[in-house]
Amino acid sequence: MNLSNLFNPRSVAVIGASDDPRKISYSIFKNLLSYKTVYPVNPNHKEISGMKCYPTVESIRKKIDLGIIAVPSKVVPEIIKKGKNVRNWIIISAGFSEAGDKKLEEEILALAKKNKQRIIGPNCMGIQIPNIDLNATFMPRSLQKGNVAFISQSGGFCAAMLFQGEQENVGLSALVSVGNMIDVDIADMIEYFDKDKNTSAIAIYLEGLKDGRKFLDAAKNCKKPIVVLKIGKTEEGKKAAVTHTGSMAGSYEIYQGAFRQANIIEVKSTEELFDLIKAFTLIKNAKKEVIIITNGGGLGTAAADAVEENGLILKEITKEKSKELIKAIPFLGNSKNPIDLTGNATTSTYETVIDILGKENASFVIILIPTAVINPEKAAISTVDLSRKKPVVACWMSGEFTESSINLLRKSGVASFESPERAVRVLGKLA
Amino acid sequence: MNLSNLFNPRSVAVIGASDDPRKISYSIFKNLLSYKTVYPVNPNHKEISGMKCYPTVESIRKKIDLGIIAVPSKVVPEIIKKGKNVRNWIIISAGFSEAGDKKLEEEILALAKKNKQRIIGPNCMGIQIPNIDLNATFMPRSLQKGNVAFISQSGGFCAAMLFQGEQENVGLSALVSVGNMIDVDIADMIEYFDKDKNTSAIAIYLEGLKDGRKFLDAAKNCKKPIVVLKIGKTEEGKKAAVTHTGSMAGSYEIYQGAFRQANIIEVKSTEELFDLIKAFTLIKNAKKEVIIITNGGGLGTAAADAVEENGLILKEITKEKSKELIKAIPFLGNSKNPIDLTGNATTSTYETVIDILGKENASFVIILIPTAVINPEKAAISTVDLSRKKPVVACWMSGEFTESSINLLRKSGVASFESPERAVRVLGKLA
Repeated sequence: MNLSNLFNPRSVAVIGASDDPRKISYSIFKNLLSYKTVYPVNPNHKEISGMKCYPTVESIRKKIDLGIIAVPSKVVPEIIKKGKNVRNWIIISAGFSEAGDKKLEEEILALAKKNKQRIIGPNCMGIQIPNIDLNATFMPRSLQKGNVAFISQSGGFCAAMLFQGEQENVGLSALVSVGNMIDVDIADMIEYFDKDKNTSAIAIYLEGLKDGRKFLDAAKNCKKPIVVLKIGKTEEGKKAAVTHTGSMAGSYEIYQGAFRQANIIEVKSTEELFDLIKAFTLIKNAKKEVIIITNGGGLGTAAADAVEENGLILKEITKEKSKELIKAIPFLGNSKNPIDLTGNATTSTYETVIDILGKENASFVIILIPTAVINPEKAAISTVDLSRKKPVVACWMSGEFTESSINLLRKSGVASFESPERAVRVLGKLA
Repeated sequence: MNLSNLFNPRSVAVIGASDDPRKISYSIFKNLLSYKTVYPVNPNHKEISGMKCYPTVESIRKKIDLGIIAVPSKVVPEIIKKGKNVRNWIIISAGFSEAGDKKLEEEILALAKKNKQRIIGPNCMGIQIPNIDLNATFMPRSLQKGNVAFISQSGGFCAAMLFQGEQENVGLSALVSVGNMIDVDIADMIEYFDKDKNTSAIAIYLEGLKDGRKFLDAAKNCKKPIVVLKIGKTEEGKKAAVTHTGSMAGSYEIYQGAFRQANIIEVKSTEELFDLIKAFTLIKNAKKEVIIITNGGGLGTAAADAVEENGLILKEITKEKSKELIKAIPFLGNSKNPIDLTGNATTSTYETVIDILGKENASFVIILIPTAVINPEKAAISTVDLSRKKPVVACWMSGEFTESSINLLRKSGVASFESPERAVRVLGKLA
């Protein structure tokens, strides 16, 4: 099954296109205005944004790779039935099984099958494929380019992902809000993005699956790493999931078994899912051996704990390197790993130490606490340089004195985390 | 044993006071300039900052409640030996057991015992007691007032705490950097802060203890909640801790047993320690029953999972309240808990729903994802109002559109967290 004319469409029609800014169909159409070929469809308009508006999708009289439907749910069957010239649908409209109307959902699926059409949705936010400048969603802005494909059963988390991504300079290769998932499902997308040359990892926000076996097979066959956050794990969570997308969350134990079988990386919170997406985007070739460099011994100790707890190894520093380090490190520092530069460390201490160790075959955790003697922004520069050659996670303690340097790290593509434990946890999952 | 003239001194002397801004003794003296009674001591100066400088502490010829020593370690014994008019010492100077010189440490302890003096340190950053405007540290600024006493074996984490606290509007009733802890130890401080009227909880960053039994007894007798982050849990962490403060981290299992026996709340990361300090500062009377209000169903489901996982209960919404809610909530929302206002929720949806539920006997988790139809800043105002009457945690998804509203929440004293899981975890520990 080939989904390429769905995820890389030559032409797009927006059914229900509007020039009323209060409607989401306005946002969808506006987001698509600059795309290759786009047709507005709405029987109530002759023209939208200076373009000819078609009364129906069939009246375009051309093959359309992707039809995006944003009209009231009751009207959807008629559109699909008649729109035989459309290859794939994204149905944004809500009001199907999640609202108790399972029949309407079955009806549109049957009609689309008859027309040999594939469907994403209904009840979804659409898709974004930044590499081809496709924003087929009603989100206020387009994502940056990245290399992780994110598939989400929560539209809200898609929005959260966009905004946090902007703030931290993290993009995606694809964002897919799957909604009720009546046809194209997560397994299909795993298969598609496994072959997508712009995607190097797949992240999934998962509530529940209809076909567990299909998912398991797709995940097992996938050559790229898959990260999953499963929600609806508890009884209360399951009840909430049913109301949310109509999905049966199922037994968490069974999911966990499947994740293990398919070598899926399971994360435990929305925060950790974002951390991993960030890590897959910014860190290449993470190593199991880790070097910790810090100007706070306590945080270095906390990081050393996290190294062991996450199945990583503190790299042994050779005697020769240790001798070099001792010359560079202030009194009472530690030239053994975790390397403690002490609160007396200056920017040049960081520079020298990074220079001495920069060729080691290891992942680096660089921790910095603001002090009176250090310039966090200058210290960030040597960390940025190191990150061009080596897998690096940075942990600059937050606050007024580090704000600009944390922004510098983010803008320069360094994976930056709030605490040493979070930084190390990410390395543990990658390595 | 009464430590009140140590933590609430009538007079302070800074031994090694300096007017050279490159020295930490400069910062210490500067921070104390506005304190009740302060004496600079330094044989090399006649005057510092326009004040008479004494050659020795004994030449002040008055009883001094607190002498702060910031001179090279070799000189410390002589100062203690002669400074018989001092009641307590804080020894900032490093270069004792953490640098391998156990003998020097024993020497100063013996001298102080002879003089009936108590010691905090050596190798520490000092103490801050915001309620009496005492900043006896070399930190660049003074903490805000709060109600949690923070005792730390890591000086670096004290600094991190200060800066993050400033950013998030969280203060402390006391900050104590304990250093090598040769005399006054954590047990003594638990006992002291248990009786301190400005303190309602005690937080501890713990590497290792010399007297476990004393700690356990003090913690068991303490009537206020105690939160501990234990570091040096793993083999690697233990090795790092020895170099850091010379402390033997000991068996983590034994510590965990002690924490359980004494009803201590154990947290697992620096981040969670800060979250709990924030929670104890900002949230009063957390309830076990929780109401979740969200405009994203997925995040609501994740929060519902977290409620169950953290031993909390989703409060049942009565039929009457549910009927009221249905009128206020957009199509396809959920009037059962977690209450899903959907992506179509406006500021007034939040206001109305908070108004309907605001008298319920529960903790509240308010989640907000920025959308085109909501004003996050206005929505923050109803959350701030609710937090004046009820225990509230807020989780505004980060990004450009929510930055100012998150700042508003922080400035207004609402406990604000990055993810629903973190927000709920905190409630679980409090309740």
